[in-house]
Amino acid sequence: MTGPRRDAIASIDFVQVLKATSQAVEDELARLVPASQALHGRIHEAMRYAVFAGGKRLRPFLVQQSAGLFGVDTVCALRVGAAIECLHTYSLVHDDLPCMDDDDLRRGRPTTHRAFDEATAVLAGDALLTVAFEILAGEATHPAAAVRCRLVEELATAAGRDGMIGGQMVDMLAAQRSFGADEIILLQRMKTGALFEFCCTAGAILGQAGAAEILRLREYARDIGLIFQITDDLLDVLSTADRTGKAVGKDAAAGKATLVSLWGVAAARTKAAELADHAIALMDPYGPSATELRALPRFLLERDS
Amino acid sequence: MTGPRRDAIASIDFVQVLKATSQAVEDELARLVPASQALHGRIHEAMRYAVFAGGKRLRPFLVQQSAGLFGVDTVCALRVGAAIECLHTYSLVHDDLPCMDDDDLRRGRPTTHRAFDEATAVLAGDALLTVAFEILAGEATHPAAAVRCRLVEELATAAGRDGMIGGQMVDMLAAQRSFGADEIILLQRMKTGALFEFCCTAGAILGQAGAAEILRLREYARDIGLIFQITDDLLDVLSTADRTGKAVGKDAAAGKATLVSLWGVAAARTKAAELADHAIALMDPYGPSATELRALPRFLLERDS
Repeated sequence: MTGPRRDAIASIDFVQVLKATSQAVEDELARLVPASQALHGRIHEAMRYAVFAGGKRLRPFLVQQSAGLFGVDTVCALRVGAAIECLHTYSLVHDDLPCMDDDDLRRGRPTTHRAFDEATAVLAGDALLTVAFEILAGEATHPAAAVRCRLVEELATAAGRDGMIGGQMVDMLAAQRSFGADEIILLQRMKTGALFEFCCTAGAILGQAGAAEILRLREYARDIGLIFQITDDLLDVLSTADRTGKAVGKDAAAGKATLVSLWGVAAARTKAAELADHAIALMDPYGPSATELRALPRFLLERDS
Repeated sequence: MTGPRRDAIASIDFVQVLKATSQAVEDELARLVPASQALHGRIHEAMRYAVFAGGKRLRPFLVQQSAGLFGVDTVCALRVGAAIECLHTYSLVHDDLPCMDDDDLRRGRPTTHRAFDEATAVLAGDALLTVAFEILAGEATHPAAAVRCRLVEELATAAGRDGMIGGQMVDMLAAQRSFGADEIILLQRMKTGALFEFCCTAGAILGQAGAAEILRLREYARDIGLIFQITDDLLDVLSTADRTGKAVGKDAAAGKATLVSLWGVAAARTKAAELADHAIALMDPYGPSATELRALPRFLLERDS
């Protein structure tokens, strides 16, 4: 079998695996974020509206695949994936608020504050953030309490004041001053990269792997995070709202510099391809168990939504 | 020494202990919520603005005192107290938002979204909620990881969709329909009571006490929570903004029923006094180590802010 042929088959397999993980995460989320007939059932309804909005479930996929490198029980990885999806969803709900990015559309549907109201969206986001930690600390997540505590701490650090939230704070300043590429990369690492790093290292933490393994997966995550950001910026410039399911051309309209606006489309694509090569090479020690993690960078380069 | 004289001395001692705990919590929070010179330092600044706004630090006091019943290291209790204060502060910051209660004043100062801006207030609240779990999961909180996991789970449950957040959701519906006393008590138990329950049981969890002890402290917490709510409603009716440092008469203006509006001032006071007697009796098994927990109900009955 020739190289390209093998790549094409791997790509079909990859999409199948991604879809299967996505379905398993949906099922897990259905159990962990149920509806409620209580007086306050509206909060559950809003949480479910936000969390069951489709999406690739890329973050749970990263947890699942990194866990696979260390022989971790898929049930454990699935719970961590569900927790991260709750946390990721909260960040989208709050970012979409009128006082933040003021978005009406998310994945082709009204944003949570448009479908419900602003107060309910704030509370639903708060509840999704809270339940993420509840899930991680729960006994079913891992037999060792020390592992569960570490996951809580790592996620809180990645998502907190010096991670995702700090990144969102910087992003709000980005329209007011001109950022260079280094600052944009730092911003990206905080705003979205930290969560990718959590996802990729979570598998190693669940598998109680050593510091060197965690470092390697963190490096992989950094590559993936930056590829994701560059391809996101490319889609913002080149795609249509119809395809991505959200407003496009927003960064330019807001006067925000991006890596694509600074480097140009061609150079950004080259940089993303280099990062993909680097990420793939990092998976060398893991053999066949890293097949999907080797396929992911190329998948991101080729994504159209 | 006669009864009344002993009571008066106990009351002076109580205020001293409350103040000492408050100071210790301030010091702990200064370490755990530091300033930052980073690009995103504004988020740290807003967190600190919200968290260092004075207040009695009643919740950390409850943790400290319940921990004292079980011989728990005060350093552990102090960290849990700091975590709960971060979480309590987040709830105030988000509740004050224009889309929620739309308050301009909190403890005599502009609310966080007035002092900064709405987006920063949303993010500062998110960050305070996140750091609460980071603190609880940290090794310094307790030598046993299982205890730290339990604290994370219990706090997430108390503060989450079926606890504090669910209560806030119900509260938003309260102006639209007329609630009876039972519904108001349920609302109170969710909105503020669940967090009091966490504080009082946290000491027992830190001390790895049995289920019966935890149940007893939970019952005490329910009494305290309801006394707190009744006296809050009384202050809303009878006090001035100057004394409480926040807007008063708001419930009546919003057409919200309260226990005081349903029962009348005199009956509400009688009910609160009965709850105080019950709470004090619950502390019988603990002898002198429960002195402050026996003094607290009376202190709440007599508070004027």
